[in-house]
Amino acid sequence: MAPWGELFAGVRGVLLDISGVLYDSGAGGGTAIAGSVEAVARLKRSQLKIRFCTNESQKSRAELVGQLRRLGFDISEGEVTAPAPAACQILKERGLRPHLLIHDGVRSEFDQIDTSNPNCVVIADAGESFSYQNMNSAFQVLMELESPVLISLGKGRYYKETSGLMLDVGPYMKALEYACGIQAEVVGKPSPEFFKSALQAIGVEAHQAVMIGDDIVGDVGGAQRCGMRALQVRTGKFRPSDEHHPEVKADGYVDNLAEAVDLLLQHVDK
Amino acid sequence: MAPWGELFAGVRGVLLDISGVLYDSGAGGGTAIAGSVEAVARLKRSQLKIRFCTNESQKSRAELVGQLRRLGFDISEGEVTAPAPAACQILKERGLRPHLLIHDGVRSEFDQIDTSNPNCVVIADAGESFSYQNMNSAFQVLMELESPVLISLGKGRYYKETSGLMLDVGPYMKALEYACGIQAEVVGKPSPEFFKSALQAIGVEAHQAVMIGDDIVGDVGGAQRCGMRALQVRTGKFRPSDEHHPEVKADGYVDNLAEAVDLLLQHVDK
Repeated sequence: MAPWGELFAGVRGVLLDISGVLYDSGAGGGTAIAGSVEAVARLKRSQLKIRFCTNESQKSRAELVGQLRRLGFDISEGEVTAPAPAACQILKERGLRPHLLIHDGVRSEFDQIDTSNPNCVVIADAGESFSYQNMNSAFQVLMELESPVLISLGKGRYYKETSGLMLDVGPYMKALEYACGIQAEVVGKPSPEFFKSALQAIGVEAHQAVMIGDDIVGDVGGAQRCGMRALQVRTGKFRPSDEHHPEVKADGYVDNLAEAVDLLLQHVDK
Repeated sequence: MAPWGELFAGVRGVLLDISGVLYDSGAGGGTAIAGSVEAVARLKRSQLKIRFCTNESQKSRAELVGQLRRLGFDISEGEVTAPAPAACQILKERGLRPHLLIHDGVRSEFDQIDTSNPNCVVIADAGESFSYQNMNSAFQVLMELESPVLISLGKGRYYKETSGLMLDVGPYMKALEYACGIQAEVVGKPSPEFFKSALQAIGVEAHQAVMIGDDIVGDVGGAQRCGMRALQVRTGKFRPSDEHHPEVKADGYVDNLAEAVDLLLQHVDK
């Protein structure tokens, strides 16, 4: 690992994952990760540009931000890059009418989208709504299409709730890919377009940015492939084996967001 | 396609898939496919050896055979090669205690198996039991194991019920593989061991046998890789695009089992 000063040379902006970095989601709105509320506040008082870059697709941005504010975070909807709005943009541009296999909590993001006579499927982290019946309905829609289009909001393997590890959208995306013999289009991390749109929103180039996340593949690997530096926090879905991942090596590992921000603010060019 | 006489030269035995060949499963026990009851009876009156080789894993063999007999088929439990008994054999040999993600209908096949303190997961076509909660429990068991073992009864993509196409175990196996970063061990078609055990049961060599199935990959491709000839019927899950499959070409395509048996009995060496 490079010395921290060298690692952070020229950094102007920070992308922050939310779940597992700011808080652990779960019953009753989840729990802030120790030190994260103050860490976000310190970042915001610094000269660094900051953008929240999440694959959250169980909740609308409004609901997510409301929940985080109740936990004490200084965050607003306009600071969040999330997959559902990005997907809506794509659906409109391409004239796609989705069959939605999504969580009720995120449905409001699709209010302006025509879902009649579907010509594609959008899959997101649907949680309990990943019933056999709902999966089968999505499968049947895809099999009726001449050129099946499957759009997946992220492709995470799992995330951590206060109650334990939970399956994310990725396994269900893979299930439909295999069932239909197709490849999904992923909207969200680790798609390069998604990271780039987050960077554009704060006017920072990839080589000037650090991603901080708990997902060694989706956050760290994805950001690095876009030319960013990336730190993995040892919170959220982090597992010790991540530090010996066969394909991805973070630029740095830190115990939590608080440590990451400490190091950043100590070493980033004043 | 070779002329039928040439194709069937030296054939001594026939492996028959069940679902989609003999009958379409569905509400009320399903429906026999036209001509199949008589076709099985004719095969049994011939000099050919016959074995039923199924990936059925929602029902015990006893229940499956009972259902088929009610539809008029001449079939007994001892004539059926099925994944659940084959899996039990493997579990016993390797001292594995499974967490079972299976349909209630097949649970009796595992009556003699120790399922306490599980050190592997067995997944089968669980149908409605593929709830998010059940998938997540299996996932959590696997993630707790140092060397996760996932045994899948078949890896079919989908099958046809009278109500339409239905997701099979394969997509859910892929979901757990992706979630845990592992590879499942498949017990059932297209595993070569499974076809071989069906052939052994009738004392027929692969080069003397014809497989008849509706699944271009699981039945036809799997049997061909074992050195068998294989016919695809245009019933069950057959789709016209199967005849132009990029990787698998059946030795012959027939409208249904009745046509296959007509051709076999006309052309097989007397």
